[in-house]
Amino acid sequence: MKKHYLPLLALLLPFLASAQTAAIDRVNPTNWWVGLKNPNVQLIVHGPGAGTLTYTINYPGVKLVKASTVENPNYAFLDLTIAATAKPGRVQLVGKKGSQTVTQSWELRARDNSPKAQGVTAADFIYCAMIDRFANGDPANDKFADMRDPNLDRANPFMRHGGDLAGVAAHLLYLKDLGVTAVWLTPVTENDQPLTNEGGTMRASYHGFGFTDQYQIDRRFGGNAGYKSYVQQAHAAGLKVVQDAVYNHVGNTHWTVQDLPMKNWLHQWPSYTNTSYKYQPVTDPHAAQSDRRVTLDGWFVPFLPDLNQQNPYVANYLIENAIWNVENFGIDAYRIDTYLYNDQPFMNRCNAALLAEYPHLHIFGESAVTNVVDQAYYTRSKIDFPFKSNQPGGLDFVLEGAMLGALKEVGTPATTGFDGGPHRFYQTLAQDVVYQDPTKLVTFLDNFDHDRYLSVIGDDFDRYKMGLTWLLTTRGIPSMYYGTEILMKNFKDPTDAEVRKDFPGGWAGDKENKFTAAGRSAKENEAFDYVRKLATYRREHKVLHEGKLMQYLPENGLYVYFRYDAVGTVLVASNTTDKAATLPTARFKERINGFSKARNVMTGESLSDVAKLQLPAKTAVVLELLR
Amino acid sequence: MKKHYLPLLALLLPFLASAQTAAIDRVNPTNWWVGLKNPNVQLIVHGPGAGTLTYTINYPGVKLVKASTVENPNYAFLDLTIAATAKPGRVQLVGKKGSQTVTQSWELRARDNSPKAQGVTAADFIYCAMIDRFANGDPANDKFADMRDPNLDRANPFMRHGGDLAGVAAHLLYLKDLGVTAVWLTPVTENDQPLTNEGGTMRASYHGFGFTDQYQIDRRFGGNAGYKSYVQQAHAAGLKVVQDAVYNHVGNTHWTVQDLPMKNWLHQWPSYTNTSYKYQPVTDPHAAQSDRRVTLDGWFVPFLPDLNQQNPYVANYLIENAIWNVENFGIDAYRIDTYLYNDQPFMNRCNAALLAEYPHLHIFGESAVTNVVDQAYYTRSKIDFPFKSNQPGGLDFVLEGAMLGALKEVGTPATTGFDGGPHRFYQTLAQDVVYQDPTKLVTFLDNFDHDRYLSVIGDDFDRYKMGLTWLLTTRGIPSMYYGTEILMKNFKDPTDAEVRKDFPGGWAGDKENKFTAAGRSAKENEAFDYVRKLATYRREHKVLHEGKLMQYLPENGLYVYFRYDAVGTVLVASNTTDKAATLPTARFKERINGFSKARNVMTGESLSDVAKLQLPAKTAVVLELLR
Repeated sequence: MKKHYLPLLALLLPFLASAQTAAIDRVNPTNWWVGLKNPNVQLIVHGPGAGTLTYTINYPGVKLVKASTVENPNYAFLDLTIAATAKPGRVQLVGKKGSQTVTQSWELRARDNSPKAQGVTAADFIYCAMIDRFANGDPANDKFADMRDPNLDRANPFMRHGGDLAGVAAHLLYLKDLGVTAVWLTPVTENDQPLTNEGGTMRASYHGFGFTDQYQIDRRFGGNAGYKSYVQQAHAAGLKVVQDAVYNHVGNTHWTVQDLPMKNWLHQWPSYTNTSYKYQPVTDPHAAQSDRRVTLDGWFVPFLPDLNQQNPYVANYLIENAIWNVENFGIDAYRIDTYLYNDQPFMNRCNAALLAEYPHLHIFGESAVTNVVDQAYYTRSKIDFPFKSNQPGGLDFVLEGAMLGALKEVGTPATTGFDGGPHRFYQTLAQDVVYQDPTKLVTFLDNFDHDRYLSVIGDDFDRYKMGLTWLLTTRGIPSMYYGTEILMKNFKDPTDAEVRKDFPGGWAGDKENKFTAAGRSAKENEAFDYVRKLATYRREHKVLHEGKLMQYLPENGLYVYFRYDAVGTVLVASNTTDKAATLPTARFKERINGFSKARNVMTGESLSDVAKLQLPAKTAVVLELLR
Repeated sequence: MKKHYLPLLALLLPFLASAQTAAIDRVNPTNWWVGLKNPNVQLIVHGPGAGTLTYTINYPGVKLVKASTVENPNYAFLDLTIAATAKPGRVQLVGKKGSQTVTQSWELRARDNSPKAQGVTAADFIYCAMIDRFANGDPANDKFADMRDPNLDRANPFMRHGGDLAGVAAHLLYLKDLGVTAVWLTPVTENDQPLTNEGGTMRASYHGFGFTDQYQIDRRFGGNAGYKSYVQQAHAAGLKVVQDAVYNHVGNTHWTVQDLPMKNWLHQWPSYTNTSYKYQPVTDPHAAQSDRRVTLDGWFVPFLPDLNQQNPYVANYLIENAIWNVENFGIDAYRIDTYLYNDQPFMNRCNAALLAEYPHLHIFGESAVTNVVDQAYYTRSKIDFPFKSNQPGGLDFVLEGAMLGALKEVGTPATTGFDGGPHRFYQTLAQDVVYQDPTKLVTFLDNFDHDRYLSVIGDDFDRYKMGLTWLLTTRGIPSMYYGTEILMKNFKDPTDAEVRKDFPGGWAGDKENKFTAAGRSAKENEAFDYVRKLATYRREHKVLHEGKLMQYLPENGLYVYFRYDAVGTVLVASNTTDKAATLPTARFKERINGFSKARNVMTGESLSDVAKLQLPAKTAVVLELLR
């Protein structure tokens, strides 16, 4: 960890002292394409003395505009323009130094017509799985002796368990059957990190947030070929692919960290400085620059060096890789890790570059904040912030907190309080005016960093169903963490491994296989069927995607809202109290007028009259209104 | 209460049935001025059959542009324009009907040069007193047999106690000595209301929020002459006058309610409908119109009929009265009651009309909300709401909640929590980006509708001092509820009378007189002196008015902020823990650089070094930094 604190001179001395033979061992991006809207690409060329070479390119339509050297002579940065008329093929980068000539082949490809960048919208239902913990489809790739962490130990919650892309691919039909339309996996990019010592516990980088090579899908998940195949299979099954991207930091064994191009490639501090994990200094008009800098430039954890995205070479490197993933693998959307810790002007440039190439691509970042003002800062908003984000979406952390806060009070006296129970959910949606388009936010009830949903709501199955009903019928793009459908639960205490357990049945020889109805308990099947029924209904009814939301003030613990469009109207009535209630609907006449009957979506029951609704205790009733 | 639900026909029948003699018993505004920027004024003329007369005016420079009749023939609305060249004098309104001629004299005055509409700014410190409960300067006006409530009973917390303008005037020097620069009294406008029965308890309208005549200062407070004299005395003492205005509703014995001009003068409902007291439907993009209507048009309480400000006659009536108060009495600022329940386009018109005549006037409304988005809606904001408020200020309810939330944790383990203690205060200020100018918000720690400050913070004197330090040194226009300086306390439970007790010494013969040092206990004097010292320092130091605020992330329960300008820098360091702390200041170098010494504003102590600060437990230290 100390290496990049050393004066760079110490690193450079070997090259300054001798006129050794130069070589190229890496070019990033590993390839590029003809026909992208942006004709420019900047190559990082690395190798001993790669920066001491003088480069030329002789390839029709490819122009070397500029070659730049930096502090570390092992790097050259080559700015190319690629004409739309250039032919796909192998471009030779020729580097000369005195009598030495180094030639490096680099591929220019034709773009293919496979589906890509389809985006995710409110028509989707995203399933978020931690790839190492979901299913092991290919035991042959479980561990590699030539990687820094050559271990596999399913008995140890902190070690790698062997889940992979083939495992997810093998369960695409399971997901499709559940009503899922898009799959978001924790990062698949290579994390060739050693075990880290966290408070005496050795932990593997199974979480995936410490990239070591952005152009390599982790071999333990299936490598580049495995990812390409996975995306093709997902698309063939009608499922979209969300990739988890990390721009803020890399693993401390990332190749550029092992041999820093320049000191300010990373955010450097006189002594190790962690981020404060506080978002206020970014948006606070009264903040000190020093607090802002700690938030943004402090390191997320000691083993994840913080990239300096104000360094244009870093920015280009990250942006080009973002495009490369879409073009190479055909992914449909990006979830962005630790979005708020990134340099925001950089994020805007990155988003703009992606959207210029792929207008339908969706981008939703993780900005774990607790109020809508700060959440709005990181998406297209209606607040006149000094900085204006162009992010199309975002993860709706505020609504997560609001839904859980409301659900925790379901069935208790607090649910009828002036601001209690459903008011928490209602009041958060009531602040949607801060967003340009709140329907582009991704909603959720938990994730791999939070306590699991079922545990948060006190193992209460009524609350469980109500919360999922809210998730799948309110505005936004719903997402669900793996295992929720089979009642996986746990708190993060004592460690987050508790909320990242293996999906039973994902490994050959598992005693239980909860991917099948037979392997699930009656209760688990009830849960699974609830999600499936609701998600399937949602998938098939545009009104729950594009329909407007109208919500009514909760009264006496009863909360009613509607989704409606020119075609249909769905009424969702939640009785959050522990007593059955009869609810007259005259108050809702703006939406209910013209409808006389209804069908209960979950029970199939027909209602011949909607003047009054019978609402069982602790139940959300979903009614399709009929004329 | 039922009268105005009756069909108007019933009221009108006497006039329709007979051609009785018409008469004029009232003209509002009671007078007007030559030389206001807006030359237009609309008179309400009332009397039996006043609407059946044909009006003419023969006065140089005064033109009767239009005479309008409405449903009730007892009203005429006369639109006049008053030329800048018109001479002050008595204008004769001549009404004719067949052979009958009715003549009504109406005064046109010259404007005087007395100070008025000076505004209140962050240079001020507002003292808010409930006039009936502060001091009785003139026992002769305590009660009037010809008023609907002829009672006075100091022993009964729900009856009138006799406080009046003369009482406040008699203590202006007390207030000035305390460091106060502006006085906000609960409404002084006539409330000639009968006792109301609230849950079996008979209550007087001492609170003042049920106007019965907007052109009459309540005689029990001193009447119009008494108010004029009070304002003059306040101005002579260098104190500004804040008037409490109520536009949303009137008392149910208001003269227009007793004889409604038209049905839609008020918000009418098929059966009595209270407001929901919920602000969300106003700003919620997903709200139902019906919920919005209940919030805005529902009545605040049954005895306060809700004015329909979309009725242009109502709007003109209220706006002209708002101007009349400024011009007639010379007030400096308006506090607006129940601001959020008003029709907001009307409020904008009213504010604009006032500011056009009086550019320095400050206006700050009561919008009791709990989040900054909704608070921003009611002032000049940076959020692109569909409706944009032009209100210059507002009462900062969100910061009140945040400060109290923080103070309640001072000295407890919660104060060092991730979002606990001072973070609550800090995080609210950190959202100031939603306002165009947060320094125009009026800050406070309690008011006549809330539990008293000292009780909320658990009777803790350390917290008491810390909160007042925050109030008087953070951004905004500080205000303090009467009695806080002598440690008055109480919860609203069982009734709000508990927080509206008489100021001891305000009545002749009071056993205690806490207006004097001799009448106060040692502890009360310590409190009084704390407020006085801080408020006096504040008054004399522009840096605490116009200086910028810079705040640092709280760490370990220590919260540091600065006020700074080109001339000076004040550091406020709060140790919210129960242990003394030593705080190195290197982290604050953006503000502390260049300063080597300091003076402790409250203790007078000199600090020869500011590299480290010694912070006693549960204490806010205020340091004037010195070079």
